[in-house]
Amino acid sequence: MDISTDFLRRIAAAAAAETLPRFRRQGAVANKEAAGFDPVTEADQQTELAIRALIAAEFPDHGILGEEHGSQNLASRHVWVIDPIDGTRAFISGLPTWGTLVGLTTDGEAVAGMMAQPFTGELFYANGSGAHYEGPGGPRRLQTRKTTRIEEATLFTTTPALFKDEARGRYNRFEQTVRLARYGTDCYAFAMLAAGSVDIVTEPGLKPYDIVALIPIIEKAGGIVTTFDGGPAENGGDIVAAATPELHEAAMAALRG
Amino acid sequence: MDISTDFLRRIAAAAAAETLPRFRRQGAVANKEAAGFDPVTEADQQTELAIRALIAAEFPDHGILGEEHGSQNLASRHVWVIDPIDGTRAFISGLPTWGTLVGLTTDGEAVAGMMAQPFTGELFYANGSGAHYEGPGGPRRLQTRKTTRIEEATLFTTTPALFKDEARGRYNRFEQTVRLARYGTDCYAFAMLAAGSVDIVTEPGLKPYDIVALIPIIEKAGGIVTTFDGGPAENGGDIVAAATPELHEAAMAALRG
Repeated sequence: MDISTDFLRRIAAAAAAETLPRFRRQGAVANKEAAGFDPVTEADQQTELAIRALIAAEFPDHGILGEEHGSQNLASRHVWVIDPIDGTRAFISGLPTWGTLVGLTTDGEAVAGMMAQPFTGELFYANGSGAHYEGPGGPRRLQTRKTTRIEEATLFTTTPALFKDEARGRYNRFEQTVRLARYGTDCYAFAMLAAGSVDIVTEPGLKPYDIVALIPIIEKAGGIVTTFDGGPAENGGDIVAAATPELHEAAMAALRG
Repeated sequence: MDISTDFLRRIAAAAAAETLPRFRRQGAVANKEAAGFDPVTEADQQTELAIRALIAAEFPDHGILGEEHGSQNLASRHVWVIDPIDGTRAFISGLPTWGTLVGLTTDGEAVAGMMAQPFTGELFYANGSGAHYEGPGGPRRLQTRKTTRIEEATLFTTTPALFKDEARGRYNRFEQTVRLARYGTDCYAFAMLAAGSVDIVTEPGLKPYDIVALIPIIEKAGGIVTTFDGGPAENGGDIVAAATPELHEAAMAALRG
Protein backbone atom coordinates (compact mmCIF):
# COMPACT_ATOMS: atom_id res chain seq x y z
CA MET A 1 0.00 0.00 0.00
CA ASP A 2 1.21 3.53 -0.73
CA ILE A 3 1.61 6.22 1.88
CA SER A 4 1.12 9.84 0.84
CA THR A 5 3.91 12.35 1.22
CA ASP A 6 1.43 14.58 2.99
CA PHE A 7 0.94 11.97 5.73
CA LEU A 8 4.70 11.64 6.21
CA ARG A 9 4.96 15.45 6.47
CA ARG A 10 2.21 15.45 9.10
CA ILE A 11 4.10 12.85 11.13
CA ALA A 12 7.26 14.95 10.87
CA ALA A 13 5.40 18.06 12.05
CA ALA A 14 3.77 16.27 14.99
CA ALA A 15 7.15 14.84 16.03
CA ALA A 16 8.85 18.23 15.73
CA ALA A 17 6.23 19.79 18.01
CA GLU A 18 7.26 17.34 20.76
CA THR A 19 11.03 17.20 20.22
CA LEU A 20 12.10 20.75 19.37
CA PRO A 21 10.81 22.52 22.49
CA ARG A 22 12.78 20.01 24.57
CA PHE A 23 16.00 20.03 22.51
CA ARG A 24 18.93 21.71 24.32
CA ARG A 25 16.67 22.37 27.31
CA GLN A 26 18.51 19.93 29.62
CA GLY A 27 15.20 18.13 30.26
CA ALA A 28 14.80 15.20 32.62
CA VAL A 29 16.92 12.28 31.48
CA ALA A 30 16.09 8.85 32.88
CA ASN A 31 18.26 5.76 32.63
CA LYS A 32 16.58 2.94 30.74
CA GLU A 33 19.24 0.42 31.68
CA ALA A 34 20.52 0.08 35.22
CA ALA A 35 23.99 -0.74 33.90
CA GLY A 36 25.43 1.50 31.23
CA PHE A 37 23.90 4.69 29.96
CA ASP A 38 20.79 4.60 27.77
CA PRO A 39 18.99 7.89 28.13
CA VAL A 40 15.31 8.18 27.45
CA THR A 41 13.93 11.65 27.49
CA GLU A 42 10.41 12.77 28.01
CA ALA A 43 10.67 13.95 24.41
CA ASP A 44 11.20 10.38 23.27
CA GLN A 45 8.08 9.14 24.99
CA GLN A 46 5.78 12.03 24.09
CA THR A 47 6.91 12.00 20.46
CA GLU A 48 6.05 8.34 20.03
CA LEU A 49 2.59 8.92 21.53
CA ALA A 50 1.95 11.76 19.06
CA ILE A 51 3.03 9.59 16.11
CA ARG A 52 0.95 6.64 17.29
CA ALA A 53 -2.12 8.86 17.54
CA LEU A 54 -1.75 10.00 13.92
CA ILE A 55 -1.30 6.44 12.65
CA ALA A 56 -4.21 5.10 14.70
CA ALA A 57 -6.50 7.82 13.35
CA GLU A 58 -5.50 7.26 9.72
CA PHE A 59 -4.95 3.48 9.69
CA PRO A 60 -6.84 2.00 12.66
CA ASP A 61 -6.32 -1.61 11.52
CA HIS A 62 -2.53 -1.33 11.10
CA GLY A 63 -0.05 -2.69 13.63
CA ILE A 64 2.50 -0.53 15.47
CA LEU A 65 5.93 -1.41 16.84
CA GLY A 66 7.52 1.42 18.83
CA GLU A 67 10.74 1.80 20.79
CA GLU A 68 9.10 3.36 23.82
CA HIS A 69 5.55 2.06 24.07
CA GLY A 70 5.76 -1.50 22.76
CA SER A 71 3.72 -3.25 20.08
CA GLN A 72 0.09 -3.67 19.13
CA ASN A 73 -1.72 -5.66 16.43
CA LEU A 74 1.46 -7.14 14.93
CA ALA A 75 -0.72 -9.73 13.14
CA SER A 76 -1.73 -7.00 10.67
CA ARG A 77 -0.27 -7.17 7.14
CA HIS A 78 0.77 -3.54 7.64
CA VAL A 79 2.96 -2.64 10.61
CA TRP A 80 4.41 0.78 11.41
CA VAL A 81 7.82 0.82 13.09
CA ILE A 82 8.74 3.90 15.13
CA ASP A 83 11.88 5.28 16.76
CA PRO A 84 10.78 8.71 18.01
CA ILE A 85 14.37 9.90 18.60
CA ASP A 86 17.06 7.79 16.99
CA GLY A 87 20.29 9.11 18.47
CA THR A 88 19.20 10.07 21.98
CA ARG A 89 22.86 10.53 22.93
CA ALA A 90 23.22 13.15 20.18
CA PHE A 91 19.92 14.71 21.32
CA ILE A 92 21.02 15.13 24.92
CA SER A 93 24.41 16.45 23.74
CA GLY A 94 22.81 19.19 21.64
CA LEU A 95 23.91 17.79 18.26
CA PRO A 96 21.48 18.04 15.32
CA THR A 97 22.30 14.52 14.05
CA TRP A 98 19.42 12.62 15.68
CA GLY A 99 16.20 11.95 13.82
CA THR A 100 12.63 10.74 14.06
CA LEU A 101 12.28 7.40 12.24
CA VAL A 102 8.92 6.08 11.05
CA GLY A 103 8.63 3.19 8.59
CA LEU A 104 5.92 0.92 7.27
CA THR A 105 6.28 -2.81 6.57
CA THR A 106 3.81 -4.75 4.46
CA ASP A 107 4.03 -8.54 4.84
CA GLY A 108 7.31 -7.95 6.63
CA GLU A 109 8.93 -5.87 3.90
CA ALA A 110 9.76 -2.17 4.42
CA VAL A 111 7.80 -0.24 1.78
CA ALA A 112 7.78 3.39 3.02
CA GLY A 113 9.73 5.41 5.53
CA MET A 114 10.90 8.80 6.74
CA MET A 115 13.73 10.34 8.75
CA ALA A 116 13.01 13.84 10.01
CA GLN A 117 15.53 16.23 11.63
CA PRO A 118 13.45 19.14 12.88
CA PHE A 119 16.29 21.42 14.09
CA THR A 120 17.75 21.57 10.58
CA GLY A 121 14.29 21.30 9.01
CA GLU A 122 15.21 18.25 6.96
CA LEU A 123 12.91 15.44 5.84
CA PHE A 124 14.24 12.36 4.02
CA TYR A 125 11.46 10.02 2.89
CA ALA A 126 10.51 7.25 0.52
CA ASN A 127 7.11 6.07 -0.70
CA GLY A 128 5.59 5.07 -4.05
CA SER A 129 7.02 8.22 -5.63
CA GLY A 130 10.63 7.25 -4.88
CA ALA A 131 13.13 8.68 -2.38
CA HIS A 132 13.15 12.41 -1.75
CA TYR A 133 14.65 15.21 0.37
CA GLU A 134 12.92 18.35 1.60
CA GLY A 135 14.71 21.06 3.55
CA PRO A 136 17.41 23.73 3.26
CA GLY A 137 18.68 23.96 -0.32
CA GLY A 138 15.27 22.93 -1.68
CA PRO A 139 13.60 19.63 -2.49
CA ARG A 140 15.34 17.00 -4.60
CA ARG A 141 15.36 13.33 -5.41
CA LEU A 142 17.75 11.25 -3.32
CA GLN A 143 20.39 9.25 -5.17
CA THR A 144 23.39 7.33 -3.88
CA ARG A 145 26.72 8.09 -5.49
CA LYS A 146 28.50 5.71 -7.82
CA THR A 147 31.62 4.85 -5.83
CA THR A 148 32.67 1.26 -6.55
CA ARG A 149 36.18 1.01 -5.08
CA ILE A 150 36.64 0.53 -1.33
CA GLU A 151 39.77 2.68 -1.32
CA GLU A 152 37.67 5.64 -2.50
CA ALA A 153 34.83 5.04 -0.04
CA THR A 154 33.70 7.04 2.99
CA LEU A 155 32.59 4.81 5.89
CA PHE A 156 30.41 5.75 8.86
CA THR A 157 29.63 3.96 12.10
CA THR A 158 28.39 5.28 15.44
CA THR A 159 31.42 3.92 17.30
CA PRO A 160 33.79 0.98 16.73
CA ALA A 161 33.19 0.07 20.38
CA LEU A 162 29.84 -1.45 19.38
CA PHE A 163 31.74 -4.20 17.51
CA LYS A 164 32.71 -6.88 20.03
CA ASP A 165 35.54 -9.45 20.07
CA GLU A 166 36.40 -10.83 16.60
CA ALA A 167 33.88 -8.45 14.98
CA ARG A 168 35.94 -5.52 16.30
CA GLY A 169 39.05 -6.87 14.62
CA ARG A 170 37.20 -7.33 11.34
CA TYR A 171 35.76 -3.80 11.59
CA ASN A 172 39.18 -2.31 12.35
CA ARG A 173 40.80 -4.06 9.38
CA PHE A 174 37.95 -2.96 7.12
CA GLU A 175 38.31 0.64 8.32
CA GLN A 176 41.97 0.57 7.26
CA THR A 177 40.95 -0.11 3.65
CA VAL A 178 38.60 2.86 3.15
CA ARG A 179 39.48 6.41 2.25
CA LEU A 180 37.76 8.10 5.18
CA ALA A 181 36.05 6.77 8.31
CA ARG A 182 33.86 8.86 10.59
CA TYR A 183 32.01 8.12 13.82
CA GLY A 184 29.03 9.31 15.77
CA THR A 185 26.01 9.85 13.60
CA ASP A 186 23.26 7.23 14.11
CA CYS A 187 20.43 7.55 11.55
CA TYR A 188 21.90 10.68 9.99
CA ALA A 189 24.65 8.64 8.34
CA PHE A 190 22.11 6.45 6.53
CA ALA A 191 20.34 9.59 5.28
CA MET A 192 23.67 10.92 3.97
CA LEU A 193 24.23 7.59 2.20
CA ALA A 194 20.89 7.98 0.42
CA ALA A 195 21.78 11.60 -0.36
CA GLY A 196 25.06 10.67 -2.05
CA SER A 197 27.44 12.14 0.54
CA VAL A 198 28.61 8.89 2.17
CA ASP A 199 29.34 5.46 0.65
CA ILE A 200 29.05 2.83 3.40
CA VAL A 201 27.32 2.78 6.80
CA THR A 202 27.58 -0.15 9.20
CA GLU A 203 26.04 -0.64 12.64
CA PRO A 204 26.03 -3.87 14.64
CA GLY A 205 23.15 -4.98 16.84
CA LEU A 206 20.40 -2.70 15.47
CA LYS A 207 16.79 -3.13 16.51
CA PRO A 208 14.06 -3.14 13.84
CA TYR A 209 13.00 0.38 14.85
CA ASP A 210 16.59 1.61 14.20
CA ILE A 211 16.54 0.57 10.54
CA VAL A 212 13.09 -0.21 9.07
CA ALA A 213 12.27 3.43 8.24
CA LEU A 214 15.63 3.83 6.50
CA ILE A 215 15.44 0.75 4.26
CA PRO A 216 13.06 2.21 1.62
CA ILE A 217 14.96 5.51 1.64
CA ILE A 218 18.26 3.75 0.95
CA GLU A 219 16.86 1.28 -1.60
CA LYS A 220 14.78 3.78 -3.58
CA ALA A 221 17.85 6.06 -3.70
CA GLY A 222 19.79 3.25 -5.41
CA GLY A 223 21.59 1.77 -2.39
CA ILE A 224 21.60 -1.65 -0.75
CA VAL A 225 21.03 -2.47 2.91
CA THR A 226 21.19 -5.97 4.44
CA THR A 227 22.56 -7.89 7.38
CA PHE A 228 26.25 -8.82 7.22
CA ASP A 229 25.35 -12.13 5.55
CA GLY A 230 23.04 -10.57 2.96
CA GLY A 231 19.74 -11.23 4.72
CA PRO A 232 16.85 -8.74 4.92
CA ALA A 233 17.48 -5.78 7.21
CA GLU A 234 13.87 -5.52 8.41
CA ASN A 235 14.53 -7.55 11.57
CA GLY A 236 17.59 -5.52 12.54
CA GLY A 237 20.84 -7.17 13.60
CA ASP A 238 24.30 -6.43 12.19
CA ILE A 239 23.57 -4.06 9.33
CA VAL A 240 25.62 -2.80 6.39
CA ALA A 241 24.36 -0.29 3.82
CA ALA A 242 26.22 0.74 0.70
CA ALA A 243 25.86 3.09 -2.25
CA THR A 244 26.58 0.42 -4.89
CA PRO A 245 26.50 -3.40 -5.23
CA GLU A 246 30.30 -3.47 -5.52
CA LEU A 247 30.82 -1.67 -2.20
CA HIS A 248 28.12 -3.75 -0.54
CA GLU A 249 29.76 -7.04 -1.60
CA ALA A 250 33.17 -5.86 -0.43
CA ALA A 251 31.82 -4.61 2.91
CA MET A 252 29.90 -7.83 3.60
CA ALA A 253 32.98 -9.91 2.79
CA ALA A 254 35.05 -7.86 5.21
CA LEU A 255 32.55 -7.68 8.07
CA ARG A 256 30.90 -11.11 8.27
CA GLY A 257 32.42 -13.77 10.47
CA MET B 1 40.24 46.00 21.54
CA ASP B 2 36.56 45.15 21.21
CA ILE B 3 35.00 43.70 18.10
CA SER B 4 31.38 44.53 17.33
CA THR B 5 28.78 41.80 17.06
CA ASP B 6 27.79 43.33 13.74
CA PHE B 7 31.27 42.71 12.33
CA LEU B 8 31.16 39.07 13.45
CA ARG B 9 27.73 38.68 11.81
CA ARG B 10 29.13 40.15 8.58
CA ILE B 11 31.97 37.62 8.63
CA ALA B 12 29.47 34.80 9.18
CA ALA B 13 27.35 36.00 6.26
CA ALA B 14 30.32 36.33 3.92
CA ALA B 15 31.50 32.84 4.88
CA ALA B 16 28.02 31.36 4.40
CA ALA B 17 27.84 32.83 0.90
CA GLU B 18 30.95 30.80 -0.03
CA THR B 19 30.31 27.57 1.88
CA LEU B 20 26.58 26.87 1.57
CA PRO B 21 26.29 26.80 -2.24
CA ARG B 22 29.07 24.17 -2.24
CA PHE B 23 27.82 22.06 0.68
CA ARG B 24 26.50 18.64 -0.44
CA ARG B 25 27.37 19.51 -4.02
CA GLN B 26 30.20 16.93 -4.28
CA GLY B 27 32.57 19.71 -5.33
CA ALA B 28 36.17 19.16 -6.29
CA VAL B 29 38.13 17.74 -3.39
CA ALA B 30 41.90 17.94 -3.46
CA ASN B 31 44.30 16.10 -1.23
CA LYS B 32 46.46 18.42 0.87
CA GLU B 33 48.72 15.64 2.07
CA ALA B 34 50.13 13.03 -0.28
CA ALA B 35 49.87 10.41 2.45
CA GLY B 36 46.60 10.14 4.36
CA PHE B 37 43.44 12.00 3.55
CA ASP B 38 43.21 15.71 4.26
CA PRO B 39 40.59 17.20 1.97
CA VAL B 40 40.63 20.83 1.04
CA THR B 41 37.68 22.05 -0.88
CA GLU B 42 37.35 25.04 -3.09
CA ALA B 43 34.89 26.25 -0.46
CA ASP B 44 37.67 26.26 2.13
CA GLN B 45 39.91 28.42 0.01
CA GLN B 46 37.27 30.87 -1.25
CA THR B 47 35.79 31.29 2.22
CA GLU B 48 39.11 32.29 3.72
CA LEU B 49 39.67 34.84 0.95
CA ALA B 50 36.26 36.40 1.65
CA ILE B 51 36.96 36.63 5.38
CA ARG B 52 40.44 38.08 4.80
CA ALA B 53 38.96 40.77 2.55
CA LEU B 54 36.51 41.87 5.26
CA ILE B 55 39.24 42.01 7.91
CA ALA B 56 41.67 43.86 5.64
CA ALA B 57 39.02 46.47 4.83
CA GLU B 58 38.06 47.04 8.49
CA PHE B 59 41.42 46.58 10.23
CA PRO B 60 44.15 47.11 7.63
CA ASP B 61 46.97 47.14 10.20
CA HIS B 62 45.98 43.85 11.85
CA GLY B 63 47.79 40.57 11.20
CA ILE B 64 46.09 37.47 9.76
CA LEU B 65 46.88 33.78 10.25
CA GLY B 66 44.77 31.49 8.07
CA GLU B 67 44.67 27.77 7.46
CA GLU B 68 44.61 28.02 3.68
CA HIS B 69 46.43 31.17 2.68
CA GLY B 70 49.18 31.56 5.28
CA SER B 71 50.11 34.49 7.47
CA GLN B 72 50.68 38.21 7.08
CA ASN B 73 51.78 40.98 9.44
CA LEU B 74 52.10 38.70 12.49
CA ALA B 75 54.14 41.44 14.20
CA SER B 76 50.90 43.36 14.80
CA ARG B 77 49.53 43.43 18.36
CA HIS B 78 46.21 42.24 16.88
CA VAL B 79 46.16 39.02 14.84
CA TRP B 80 43.08 37.33 13.35
CA VAL B 81 43.15 33.54 13.21
CA ILE B 82 40.94 31.83 10.61
CA ASP B 83 39.80 28.29 9.87
CA PRO B 84 37.30 28.77 7.03
CA ILE B 85 35.87 25.24 7.39
CA ASP B 86 36.80 23.44 10.60
CA GLY B 87 35.65 19.87 10.05
CA THR B 88 36.24 19.46 6.32
CA ARG B 89 35.60 15.71 6.69
CA ALA B 90 32.13 16.47 8.08
CA PHE B 91 31.64 19.01 5.28
CA ILE B 92 32.41 16.55 2.50
CA SER B 93 30.25 13.91 4.21
CA GLY B 94 27.20 16.20 4.27
CA LEU B 95 27.06 16.56 8.07
CA PRO B 96 26.11 19.98 9.53
CA THR B 97 28.75 19.77 12.31
CA TRP B 98 31.52 21.77 10.63
CA GLY B 99 31.95 25.47 11.27
CA THR B 100 33.69 28.66 10.23
CA LEU B 101 36.11 29.75 12.94
CA VAL B 102 37.40 33.32 13.22
CA GLY B 103 39.18 34.60 16.31
CA LEU B 104 41.20 37.64 17.33
CA THR B 105 44.29 37.64 19.52
CA THR B 106 45.67 40.76 21.16
CA ASP B 107 49.25 40.44 22.44
CA GLY B 108 48.87 36.69 21.93
CA GLU B 109 45.71 36.31 23.97
CA ALA B 110 42.38 35.30 22.38
CA VAL B 111 39.92 38.14 23.06
CA ALA B 112 37.06 37.63 20.59
CA GLY B 113 35.85 34.82 18.40
CA MET B 114 33.03 33.21 16.46
CA MET B 115 31.92 29.80 15.23
CA ALA B 116 29.28 29.91 12.51
CA GLN B 117 27.31 26.93 11.14
CA PRO B 118 25.42 28.29 8.16
CA PHE B 119 23.35 25.19 7.26
CA THR B 120 21.68 25.26 10.69
CA GLY B 121 21.88 29.07 10.81
CA GLU B 122 23.78 29.08 14.11
CA LEU B 123 26.28 31.66 15.32
CA PHE B 124 28.23 31.22 18.56
CA TYR B 125 30.37 34.24 19.41
CA ALA B 126 32.18 36.10 22.14
CA ASN B 127 33.33 39.70 22.37
CA GLY B 128 33.25 42.44 24.99
CA SER B 129 29.56 41.75 25.59
CA GLY B 130 30.16 38.15 26.70
CA ALA B 131 29.40 34.86 24.97
CA HIS B 132 26.21 34.55 22.95
CA TYR B 133 24.20 32.29 20.64
CA GLU B 134 22.05 33.35 17.70
CA GLY B 135 20.01 30.89 15.64
CA PRO B 136 17.04 28.50 15.82
CA GLY B 137 15.31 28.79 19.19
CA GLY B 138 16.25 32.44 19.50
CA PRO B 139 19.25 34.36 20.86
CA ARG B 140 20.59 33.64 24.32
CA ARG B 141 23.67 33.98 26.48
CA LEU B 142 25.99 30.98 26.46
CA GLN B 143 26.72 29.33 29.79
CA THR B 144 28.49 26.09 30.60
CA ARG B 145 26.67 23.69 32.89
CA LYS B 146 27.74 23.02 36.45
CA THR B 147 28.78 19.37 36.30
CA THR B 148 31.65 18.74 38.74
CA ARG B 149 31.89 14.93 38.91
CA ILE B 150 33.64 12.99 36.15
CA GLU B 151 31.20 10.10 36.45
CA GLU B 152 28.37 12.48 35.45
CA ALA B 153 30.25 14.10 32.57
CA THR B 154 29.72 13.88 28.82
CA LEU B 155 33.02 13.76 26.88
CA PHE B 156 33.59 14.53 23.20
CA THR B 157 36.57 13.96 20.93
CA THR B 158 36.79 13.72 17.15
CA THR B 159 38.25 10.22 17.26
CA PRO B 160 40.38 8.31 19.79
CA ALA B 161 42.65 7.38 16.88
CA LEU B 162 44.18 10.88 17.08
CA PHE B 163 45.70 9.94 20.45
CA LYS B 164 48.96 8.05 19.80
CA ASP B 165 50.89 5.47 21.85
CA GLU B 166 50.74 6.11 25.63
CA ALA B 167 48.34 9.02 25.09
CA ARG B 168 45.84 6.58 23.56
CA GLY B 169 45.96 4.42 26.67
CA ARG B 170 45.45 7.46 28.90
CA TYR B 171 42.53 8.62 26.76
CA ASN B 172 40.92 5.17 26.79
CA ARG B 173 41.19 4.91 30.57
CA PHE B 174 39.77 8.42 30.97
CA GLU B 175 36.87 7.57 28.67
CA GLN B 176 35.97 4.65 30.93
CA THR B 177 35.42 7.06 33.84
CA VAL B 178 32.87 9.38 32.20
CA ARG B 179 29.14 8.88 31.86
CA LEU B 180 28.94 9.27 28.09
CA ALA B 181 31.60 9.57 25.37
CA ARG B 182 30.86 10.64 21.81
CA TYR B 183 33.04 11.04 18.70
CA GLY B 184 33.14 12.95 15.50
CA THR B 185 32.29 16.59 15.98
CA ASP B 186 35.29 18.95 15.53
CA CYS B 187 34.48 22.57 16.51
CA TYR B 188 30.81 21.82 17.10
CA ALA B 189 31.63 19.97 20.32
CA PHE B 190 33.36 23.07 21.78
CA ALA B 191 30.29 25.16 20.90
CA MET B 192 28.06 22.62 22.69
CA LEU B 193 30.38 22.86 25.72
CA ALA B 194 29.87 26.62 25.80
CA ALA B 195 26.13 26.09 25.34
CA GLY B 196 25.86 23.79 28.35
CA SER B 197 25.10 20.55 26.49
CA VAL B 198 28.51 18.84 26.87
CA ASP B 199 30.98 18.84 29.78
CA ILE B 200 34.46 18.02 28.42
CA VAL B 201 36.04 18.22 24.96
CA THR B 202 39.56 17.05 24.24
CA GLU B 203 41.52 17.07 20.99
CA PRO B 204 45.22 16.29 20.61
CA GLY B 205 47.48 18.06 18.12
CA LEU B 206 45.33 21.09 17.32
CA LYS B 207 46.66 23.99 15.28
CA PRO B 208 46.09 27.56 16.50
CA TYR B 209 43.41 28.10 13.86
CA ASP B 210 41.48 25.06 15.24
CA ILE B 211 41.08 26.59 18.70
CA VAL B 212 41.77 30.36 18.95
CA ALA B 213 38.25 31.41 17.88
CA LEU B 214 36.73 29.04 20.43
CA ILE B 215 38.76 30.14 23.46
CA PRO B 216 36.81 33.36 24.21
CA ILE B 217 33.50 31.58 23.56
CA ILE B 218 34.35 28.86 26.08
CA GLU B 219 35.89 31.19 28.66
CA LYS B 220 33.18 33.86 28.57
CA ALA B 221 30.56 31.09 28.89
CA GLY B 222 32.22 30.04 32.16
CA GLY B 223 34.42 27.19 30.92
CA ILE B 224 38.15 26.55 30.92
CA VAL B 225 40.36 25.60 27.98
CA THR B 226 44.11 24.89 28.15
CA THR B 227 46.74 22.46 26.98
CA PHE B 228 46.97 19.14 28.85
CA ASP B 229 49.53 20.69 31.24
CA GLY B 230 47.50 23.82 31.91
CA GLY B 231 49.26 26.14 29.48
CA PRO B 232 47.51 28.67 27.24
CA ALA B 233 45.52 27.14 24.37
CA GLU B 234 46.28 29.95 21.91
CA ASN B 235 49.22 28.10 20.35
CA GLY B 236 47.25 24.89 19.87
CA GLY B 237 48.66 21.51 20.85
CA ASP B 238 46.94 18.91 23.02
CA ILE B 239 43.81 20.71 24.20
CA VAL B 240 41.25 20.01 26.91
CA ALA B 241 38.19 22.17 27.57
CA ALA B 242 35.79 21.70 30.48
CA ALA B 243 32.61 23.21 31.87
CA THR B 244 33.96 23.65 35.42
CA PRO B 245 37.34 23.89 37.19
CA GLU B 246 36.71 20.53 38.88
CA LEU B 247 36.22 18.69 35.58
CA HIS B 248 39.16 20.52 34.02
CA GLU B 249 41.53 19.48 36.82
CA ALA B 250 40.35 15.88 36.65
CA ALA B 251 40.65 15.74 32.85
CA MET B 252 44.16 17.26 32.88
CA ALA B 253 45.30 14.80 35.52
CA ALA B 254 44.01 11.89 33.45
CA LEU B 255 45.28 13.03 30.05
CA ARG B 256 48.74 14.51 30.62
CA GLY B 257 51.79 12.24 30.39
